[in-house]
Amino acid sequence: MRRPTTHHVPPDLPRVLRLTVAYDGTAYHGFQRQTNLLTIQGSLETVLAKICGHPVTLYGAGRTDAGVHAYGQVVHFYTSAGIPVERLAGAASNLLPPDIVVTDAVETGPEFHARFSAQSKVYVYRIYQGQMKNPFLSPLTWHVRQPLADAPIQEALAMLLGTHDFSSFRAAGGPPCTPIRTILQAESRRLEDDILEFSFWGDGFLYHMVRNLVGTLVNVGKGRTTPARFKQILESCDRTQAGPTAPPQGLYLKKVFYGDEAQIDHIK
Amino acid sequence: MRRPTTHHVPPDLPRVLRLTVAYDGTAYHGFQRQTNLLTIQGSLETVLAKICGHPVTLYGAGRTDAGVHAYGQVVHFYTSAGIPVERLAGAASNLLPPDIVVTDAVETGPEFHARFSAQSKVYVYRIYQGQMKNPFLSPLTWHVRQPLADAPIQEALAMLLGTHDFSSFRAAGGPPCTPIRTILQAESRRLEDDILEFSFWGDGFLYHMVRNLVGTLVNVGKGRTTPARFKQILESCDRTQAGPTAPPQGLYLKKVFYGDEAQIDHIK
Repeated sequence: MRRPTTHHVPPDLPRVLRLTVAYDGTAYHGFQRQTNLLTIQGSLETVLAKICGHPVTLYGAGRTDAGVHAYGQVVHFYTSAGIPVERLAGAASNLLPPDIVVTDAVETGPEFHARFSAQSKVYVYRIYQGQMKNPFLSPLTWHVRQPLADAPIQEALAMLLGTHDFSSFRAAGGPPCTPIRTILQAESRRLEDDILEFSFWGDGFLYHMVRNLVGTLVNVGKGRTTPARFKQILESCDRTQAGPTAPPQGLYLKKVFYGDEAQIDHIK
Repeated sequence: MRRPTTHHVPPDLPRVLRLTVAYDGTAYHGFQRQTNLLTIQGSLETVLAKICGHPVTLYGAGRTDAGVHAYGQVVHFYTSAGIPVERLAGAASNLLPPDIVVTDAVETGPEFHARFSAQSKVYVYRIYQGQMKNPFLSPLTWHVRQPLADAPIQEALAMLLGTHDFSSFRAAGGPPCTPIRTILQAESRRLEDDILEFSFWGDGFLYHMVRNLVGTLVNVGKGRTTPARFKQILESCDRTQAGPTAPPQGLYLKKVFYGDEAQIDHIK
């Protein structure tokens, strides 16, 4: 969204490398580096420093919370190492634990910044609807036993399209910024194993916005909140009107777009 | 297979309770209780002892190795506790960690033994065929990048049907017993996310038999071993002829049959 045209590239670290990273966030205290805690950023920086032979500072597209997962987190860093970029993803993944995988690495220029160059992002959220607890899905979904009606959920999702003030779905504690965001796509679909998957494609998301939307949409699916009431909640710009925050383990950062993709129809 | 008609029910623990248990075995040192190590049996016994108010000894249908999973492990135990059986699965699952779930509990009689009353079992084995490592699937599948041809694998699977001496697929270290086993069904199918799933339904399985079969079947899928050679390996009764042991994390104990099921067509 914010797009400064230049970024500070350290003069002794002239190469700018951009990585795509997938991770199961279950074992991690979120993306952002924290002293003495296991984090995605810390784990990546340690491994990249070994490969590059110098300390590495990573810049990520989004700071996922503890327990949140990613298929397509994007990060960049600056280096003087001569490693061919086509060998970097494999080298990093071999040194990383199996729950973090570098799926792609490309060399880019000083104008690129994983966070500030991002134009839009896709998040998905998965709800497990089985009656029984599932030992394989519990760290990867929110378990909601009560049946959720698809039609009112989809009616409510359609109301999110376009540009709105999303203050009703914004948690306290995020960075100060405008609450205006544009939603390009908001859908739900049923996967196998009784999973209901929401996907949200937008130019940006406020702190906990997806989880707050899902918590309120689940109330719509249960019949507690009508689609018309959902619209009122959105328009109220009042966080106290909306539903609870859905738990972190159902959330996945699916993809980050930088405007350099040939086409975007592969996001589904 | 072996079916003694009576079992020793402790006189002070007259109720016989049979549980079905699902677990993600990733964090556990196998099913069988071991001092100072986290095991499925140990975790279940601790929780059941809390519920019952006395120490509990569990008998399982099969001893899954470290990293092996289950959808339908069956166990039984003896108790004097008055807990209604319909409340037991929920009470146990609430006390257990999320990677172990008791999915069913029924009261049975002194003639039942989880291991000795078992008539047949179904194991499945999952192979992930994607080019990229997958952080979500690595503890739940064997990652084989090379494409595997379905036709020769299915030709080889058909050779397993019926009664054979499975010494070629028996690991050292298992309990001494006859190597003769009957395979009722042996199939493979493709699931989404590039997963190849084998399923084996048989009256019993030797130690590491499924993993040794899968290791050899993967060689068939790669074209290293022809279906005709697979038949020779089976008939040789010589472990050194067969392929490597597939890793544990792809293996799941799917279901145990006791002859009291109304029908068996739900195993797929």
